[in-house]
Amino acid sequence: MTTHHFHPTHYHATIGPHEPVLRIAAGDTVVTTTVDAYGRDARHEQVTAGSNPQAGPFYVENAEPGDTLALHFDHLYPNRDYGYTSTAVAANVVDPQYVGALPERARAEWRIDRARGTASLVKPATKLGNLTLPLAPMLGCFGVAPPDGQAISTTTAGQYGGNMDYRGFVAGVTVYLPVFVPGALLFLGDGHAVQGDGEIVGTGIEVSFDVQFTVRLLKGKRINWPRGENAAYIFTVGNARPLDQAVQHATTEMLRWLQEDYGLDALGAHILLGQCVEYDLGNMFDPAYTMVCKLPKRWL
Amino acid sequence: MTTHHFHPTHYHATIGPHEPVLRIAAGDTVVTTTVDAYGRDARHEQVTAGSNPQAGPFYVENAEPGDTLALHFDHLYPNRDYGYTSTAVAANVVDPQYVGALPERARAEWRIDRARGTASLVKPATKLGNLTLPLAPMLGCFGVAPPDGQAISTTTAGQYGGNMDYRGFVAGVTVYLPVFVPGALLFLGDGHAVQGDGEIVGTGIEVSFDVQFTVRLLKGKRINWPRGENAAYIFTVGNARPLDQAVQHATTEMLRWLQEDYGLDALGAHILLGQCVEYDLGNMFDPAYTMVCKLPKRWL
Amino acid sequence: MTTHHFHPTHYHATIGPHEPVLRIAAGDTVVTTTVDAYGRDARHEQVTAGSNPQAGPFYVENAEPGDTLALHFDHLYPNRDYGYTSTAVAANVVDPQYVGALPERARAEWRIDRARGTASLVKPATKLGNLTLPLAPMLGCFGVAPPDGQAISTTTAGQYGGNMDYRGFVAGVTVYLPVFVPGALLFLGDGHAVQGDGEIVGTGIEVSFDVQFTVRLLKGKRINWPRGENAAYIFTVGNARPLDQAVQHATTEMLRWLQEDYGLDALGAHILLGQCVEYDLGNMFDPAYTMVCKLPKRWL
Amino acid sequence: MTTHHFHPTHYHATIGPHEPVLRIAAGDTVVTTTVDAYGRDARHEQVTAGSNPQAGPFYVENAEPGDTLALHFDHLYPNRDYGYTSTAVAANVVDPQYVGALPERARAEWRIDRARGTASLVKPATKLGNLTLPLAPMLGCFGVAPPDGQAISTTTAGQYGGNMDYRGFVAGVTVYLPVFVPGALLFLGDGHAVQGDGEIVGTGIEVSFDVQFTVRLLKGKRINWPRGENAAYIFTVGNARPLDQAVQHATTEMLRWLQEDYGLDALGAHILLGQCVEYDLGNMFDPAYTMVCKLPKRWL
Repeated sequence: MTTHHFHPTHYHATIGPHEPVLRIAAGDTVVTTTVDAYGRDARHEQVTAGSNPQAGPFYVENAEPGDTLALHFDHLYPNRDYGYTSTAVAANVVDPQYVGALPERARAEWRIDRARGTASLVKPATKLGNLTLPLAPMLGCFGVAPPDGQAISTTTAGQYGGNMDYRGFVAGVTVYLPVFVPGALLFLGDGHAVQGDGEIVGTGIEVSFDVQFTVRLLKGKRINWPRGENAAYIFTVGNARPLDQAVQHATTEMLRWLQEDYGLDALGAHILLGQCVEYDLGNMFDPAYTMVCKLPKRWL
Repeated sequence: MTTHHFHPTHYHATIGPHEPVLRIAAGDTVVTTTVDAYGRDARHEQVTAGSNPQAGPFYVENAEPGDTLALHFDHLYPNRDYGYTSTAVAANVVDPQYVGALPERARAEWRIDRARGTASLVKPATKLGNLTLPLAPMLGCFGVAPPDGQAISTTTAGQYGGNMDYRGFVAGVTVYLPVFVPGALLFLGDGHAVQGDGEIVGTGIEVSFDVQFTVRLLKGKRINWPRGENAAYIFTVGNARPLDQAVQHATTEMLRWLQEDYGLDALGAHILLGQCVEYDLGNMFDPAYTMVCKLPKRWL
Repeated sequence: MTTHHFHPTHYHATIGPHEPVLRIAAGDTVVTTTVDAYGRDARHEQVTAGSNPQAGPFYVENAEPGDTLALHFDHLYPNRDYGYTSTAVAANVVDPQYVGALPERARAEWRIDRARGTASLVKPATKLGNLTLPLAPMLGCFGVAPPDGQAISTTTAGQYGGNMDYRGFVAGVTVYLPVFVPGALLFLGDGHAVQGDGEIVGTGIEVSFDVQFTVRLLKGKRINWPRGENAAYIFTVGNARPLDQAVQHATTEMLRWLQEDYGLDALGAHILLGQCVEYDLGNMFDPAYTMVCKLPKRWL
Repeated sequence: MTTHHFHPTHYHATIGPHEPVLRIAAGDTVVTTTVDAYGRDARHEQVTAGSNPQAGPFYVENAEPGDTLALHFDHLYPNRDYGYTSTAVAANVVDPQYVGALPERARAEWRIDRARGTASLVKPATKLGNLTLPLAPMLGCFGVAPPDGQAISTTTAGQYGGNMDYRGFVAGVTVYLPVFVPGALLFLGDGHAVQGDGEIVGTGIEVSFDVQFTVRLLKGKRINWPRGENAAYIFTVGNARPLDQAVQHATTEMLRWLQEDYGLDALGAHILLGQCVEYDLGNMFDPAYTMVCKLPKRWL
């Protein structure tokens, strides 16, 4: 049960079988930082190239293909005062005939007040003025090395996690990821101070983060897609296009979970899910879209 | 401002240019009933053939193509003690490879306690026992006659409304529908005592309803897709396949609304939506799927 | 075996349960005309409003729900010298990010030389000059009244046929359509002198047609989707969005056909289709897209 | 203009920045072999693990990011007498409700007569008997290292090529691939003696191949998606899900090609494509589906 303080010095543009930066054991906690999606750190310095650069990978001792990695987000919080968003909804999120009406894709700047827990729009000047939103810090991209020796861009997502941009990945949540390679090889990055569903402008309020997480290992537990839980819900995550397929992955994973781990018979799982399921939209911007299938724990 | 008490005696399997059953004026209130999706009424008697039979159409005096009909749900509540759900998630909602694992599609029976506001599973026998859920009564299908003289099955949805199966269509909500024909020709049916997101088993808890609604007319106000509002949110509805396209319709409609009626400039609308938008899943069962784009009123 | 000469005097914007214009018997032939997609006839006069106005419906004596209507196109040919196309690929057929690069949607004019069997571009002036293409006359939209009393816009398609814009619907082809209402109620229109796959500019070379067709009736033969055959192929048609779903419908219908009518066992049907199937794209412009699943007759 | 005779001794399960096995120059020809999709070679021996193992990568001297690699298939032919197909159409290619009717996914065996140019079904026993098909040898999977240091499974496809399973990739064709890394790093594998459109059973007749190809380099020529040409057509390839998106990629690439390299103005390119385009379906089995946009050279 060691707590590691780790300061990243280089970053990855792919999630894959890269050289581990730290070896940790099940039960260990890591205190570290992530840079923003453009490669800037807490001092606002460009320390790596952009596009969701990832800290890690963290090698989890004894993790083997066929296990599940449980990743608890202990703490996720911006570690600087400026964040950025895009100014235009993405072309793929509006009617094709409406694309010509989209504003130019530029950068908006937000002032983050970490003490008060708010983010305020600084520019451009719009009728929103200095719109001020409550912080809801979440991690946009994290995952473990995918199967078959693949190294996959941090702009997309799959069964191994990746750039899911789900607002539910906040401090207090436990995420379960399937292990495909020895050591699991955990990566993290792309913190958002605030984000709307779907990450429809292609960004949350992009900012560098202080991160603390704790890992556990579920030996011999096989899962197919990321799972998670918070105080009120269990949930499963599907990453694919179109959204329909992401829903199919997440729903299938939930049906399996209910029957394998919650002792429900098939009929019970289906009847329960039919009347109590909820769905959230992760991102609808990346090559793979994300849908989340949720079930309130009170019904379990 | 008349209150009409109307008892339906026949029902429609399509939403289209049918003979009006009642003429009402803007500002009027109608107290009526709907039968369940299988055509059974409050006494549990089969009064019409199944598949979301609709009461109506109600002709709204002075409504003309190019207007918008505002429909306020004053009261929506089950008017009998039994409801039904399907027992299996639909094949299109799970991975194609998982379809073989689906249970047979049969009917589950629920006891509705209207005084306590609950629904309890009666059969089949599963590990859920007599699972008891709080009522959350909503109307699955309603709409106005579509354009071009079309009459469209009540199993699907479009710009005119239809079978959207959105959990947010509850008492207290105001829905806005584009008027395509003189009198608008409003239809209603398909009450659900409870329903999960996506109506993924193809049913909510299907039951007959007592319904009270009030209409207003927004003369000369053109909209493209259903809109709505409750105390906390404004929202827009897209109906299409795949879900991606439903999101596109709903998001485009919201961008128009923000700029036309809430005084936002384009940049402001995009920046706001990017960080504050929420999406809900209506049904993912019908020929047309439904996605809802929501914005909290506190940001407007 | 009567040959009817029928001159249409009014047209329909929906395919539905409209009053028949002519009653014909199985075996009968009809010689008639269709107007172009904009409602103009052989004299280039506007005789009805636009959007694929349909001649008919033709009532086929003795056709009942559960039968199949066999429709043989004896003759399909332009009956005037001018046709029109759109000048821009539709926004939904290009990358969302490329929509801004599309030219404005205007009308191009083509001179049809019926004797030589060619169509030549007249305007606008482009580097194509007077591009001259061989005629390949096909019927873009035809179908029978859909089920459940529906009347559906001639801009879309479904199990009943409709606006499929498939280049394979030429003279010499036999099409099979499921009968949903007494008399089948056959509609036809939207002739194209030439058309690319996908009807990606939203038009073929739109022109009025001389049409001759002969109907037969397959009593008690149930099919789910349009089927067809020419000298070399049998084929099935799926109409839906996205294209994936259209492929699913067409492929499922072909698997059924091979097993029900060609005496193949399931394994044989699957192995054969796997190595010998071909797919064509009908339209990718309308609300419902069209995919065609083909199998060369030589393997049957 | 060297001809290299290269015998592969190891294979890759990903297309990525792997150690080159041979360095070649623009203008050079390579005579080599590929193993089948299951990792078996000409002697039918298992020489590597399955799933489209790739020979290569071949490093093309002087190839740099921003160039285009022209790959001419001089010769593609089976080099042994046995091939294999799957016996069942994939679950994602049929209606979800029809999945239960699919036969079990087993292996069919085919005898290849290389002298006569045919493949005959050996087993299982079906009503097809010893169905004999003409060989149409094509390469299912090939590509260059993708951008951003990615290594991507040979089961899928993207802008870099990959597992496209397009029947048009036969001897005599020239394919153009965008270069993302120094040396381009060309991979090849997954030969099919015969294949239906869509590779809907998940296989062609899988067999090891003799391969001869010649490379050229188009310095400074940027393309976004694979392009190709044969005697009659130019074509572009889109790889994505759903098929709609694959069409969008391919069509956009074709519009660019016509305007950049064939001297067409935008209006001319759109008008021409609208009436003369053809589409083919590559695979509809892999994570990314493939659509091909074709234009007859006679119109250029």
